Amino acid sequence: MKRRQFIQAAGLAGVSGAAAAAFPAPAIAQSRTELVVVSTWPRDFPGLGTSAQRVCKRIEELTEGRLHVTYYAAGERVGAFASFDEVASGNAQAYIAADYYWKGKHPGWAYFTAIPMGQTYTEIDAWIKYGGGQELWDEIADGFGLKCWAVGNTGVQMGGWFNKEINSASDFKGLKMRIPGLGGDVLAKLGASPVSLPGGQIYENLVSGAIDATEWVGPWNDFFMKFYEAAKYYYYPGFHEPGSQLSFGMNKAWWSKLSKTDQAILQAACNEENARMMAETNNNNGAYLTKLIKEHGVKLKKFNDETYDAFGTATKEVMAEVRQHSPLAAKIDDSFNNSLAAVGAWSGLSDAAYVVTRNRVLGI
Amino acid sequence: MKRRQFIQAAGLAGVSGAAAAAFPAPAIAQSRTELVVVSTWPRDFPGLGTSAQRVCKRIEELTEGRLHVTYYAAGERVGAFASFDEVASGNAQAYIAADYYWKGKHPGWAYFTAIPMGQTYTEIDAWIKYGGGQELWDEIADGFGLKCWAVGNTGVQMGGWFNKEINSASDFKGLKMRIPGLGGDVLAKLGASPVSLPGGQIYENLVSGAIDATEWVGPWNDFFMKFYEAAKYYYYPGFHEPGSQLSFGMNKAWWSKLSKTDQAILQAACNEENARMMAETNNNNGAYLTKLIKEHGVKLKKFNDETYDAFGTATKEVMAEVRQHSPLAAKIDDSFNNSLAAVGAWSGLSDAAYVVTRNRVLGI
Repeated sequence: MKRRQFIQAAGLAGVSGAAAAAFPAPAIAQSRTELVVVSTWPRDFPGLGTSAQRVCKRIEELTEGRLHVTYYAAGERVGAFASFDEVASGNAQAYIAADYYWKGKHPGWAYFTAIPMGQTYTEIDAWIKYGGGQELWDEIADGFGLKCWAVGNTGVQMGGWFNKEINSASDFKGLKMRIPGLGGDVLAKLGASPVSLPGGQIYENLVSGAIDATEWVGPWNDFFMKFYEAAKYYYYPGFHEPGSQLSFGMNKAWWSKLSKTDQAILQAACNEENARMMAETNNNNGAYLTKLIKEHGVKLKKFNDETYDAFGTATKEVMAEVRQHSPLAAKIDDSFNNSLAAVGAWSGLSDAAYVVTRNRVLGI
Repeated sequence: MKRRQFIQAAGLAGVSGAAAAAFPAPAIAQSRTELVVVSTWPRDFPGLGTSAQRVCKRIEELTEGRLHVTYYAAGERVGAFASFDEVASGNAQAYIAADYYWKGKHPGWAYFTAIPMGQTYTEIDAWIKYGGGQELWDEIADGFGLKCWAVGNTGVQMGGWFNKEINSASDFKGLKMRIPGLGGDVLAKLGASPVSLPGGQIYENLVSGAIDATEWVGPWNDFFMKFYEAAKYYYYPGFHEPGSQLSFGMNKAWWSKLSKTDQAILQAACNEENARMMAETNNNNGAYLTKLIKEHGVKLKKFNDETYDAFGTATKEVMAEVRQHSPLAAKIDDSFNNSLAAVGAWSGLSDAAYVVTRNRVLGI
């Protein structure tokens, strides 16, 4: 009898003491639950990877090892995009990923990461926790046997690195730009040729001129990609990913068998990491923005109103196609946009109006 | 021998199984640790009170009752402002409060709640967790035998309710306005007469004309105060409290004796509630902003540049006095402002620039 058959025969499913075979058995071994986590990020990748690894350690710490976590970075157990099936099938218990990777399975997933012209970190957190967002996330996840919690956020992304100035939407015509997902669909409507490239190939393509422009994340992550050597202009604000929320997606059958306490601890650990990653990212974006400008002479440019209006029009066309997919997609779109209208108006009067005004007065 | 003497004699200090006398004794009674929390908020007060009560329940849930929490709202055990001494003395184990209430003990405390023209929620969270803020908070707290974690945030406050338009700083001359703390000190420099009034007395003073204006919190909390019946104009953005962070302040000797696991769970519960309260507040501010405008005809007004410049100049004078108090005050001021310069610049390019632009394009 193979080990997996033994576990199934014992009725233990994913909740097992199987790892006792591989580790010294402490007194608590019988009550230990295995939690295999597969992620879509490279090991030790700053921000995304380190955050995923940190929350896994935290889960062990908060449960005193009752939940025994084994973390696999992208490619260490399965490829990044195989994480979904690995967890939905029950081969692993959880993934850490951006749920918009699964929009081919259902386009509604995209709303729970980020959509063009959508919500910022504080806005999506309000929608998820108090505006009905979590309930809809539960509904779409349930259809695949999953249960998801927010576990991080990369904040507002920069608009990207360009070798020429962007003075109107027509400057995107024929532009080859690395920008994946719905953001790429929006730019395609403006006549750009969006390209998907993995992180490790962007720099060489930008230097060789195989692509004209690229977006990536923000000052902290972009700094280490050395894009400033290959492109002059760094545009803001990005329209395409205004607050990408990451997901701790669990096999729901496994999750349902946990004790109430362990369920609560998993939720608390994810909630804590969601804010911690944002704090780390904002702190480091501040520091690396300063370095990019002062040490590398990067020129910050703001997209003008005409260009942003064109992003808006094209975004509406793209999102109209998304919501037509199914009643669930339309229901998610309605909930997201109702929350955005109310909370977004509040963001405008509060954080945005304050920061713009304060920065002007203090010369920041 | 009285019970407190017994506990002390037994060397149990605040960590005791004493509550077993009042409750049925479960099998785990011996390992149960009592955690008495006193707060500065009225029971069930929306946002502040309900958040404090929620995190106390969560601590019990996450520890399976190992930490047994007894919560006292303001006045139920000690008055709100006696919370500090109650915890510093070891009579209670923790308070939930806004640490700027203790600025009479040391003005440095104010930075860990909010200072005029200071940091927003995402900015102070970046400073506390990754910019050196927690270390300085630990330093000031240690001087009083305390250890503090962030446990909530009320976000950017509105500028207040006024019966006349504010077109320049000179409109504050002679104005009687309810605005406590450093914000009041700033307006005093502009010739206003700042008044401190508890929440329950503001409405009647505004209706009778005993005060000309008041600030409180934001749309959600202000709605229930019915200020819209007594004042026409609702000004934004407030300069005085741009992201008031709340504190879970523990007796440090008690905290030091907890297991590593229980320390970690307390931290995780506070971190989780910090973001959860902000999410709840943003969600509800969005909803109640809409109600104030559509159902009660409230007129939103933005402070103009000239007025805000005057807030800035007066704030610099007030904060220069604060930092002169002591080397620690100056060290905190330096750290706070260094973080603000870098992270604030990033906020301006990211969340603020994005929200302003998106709202214009989408008509929000």
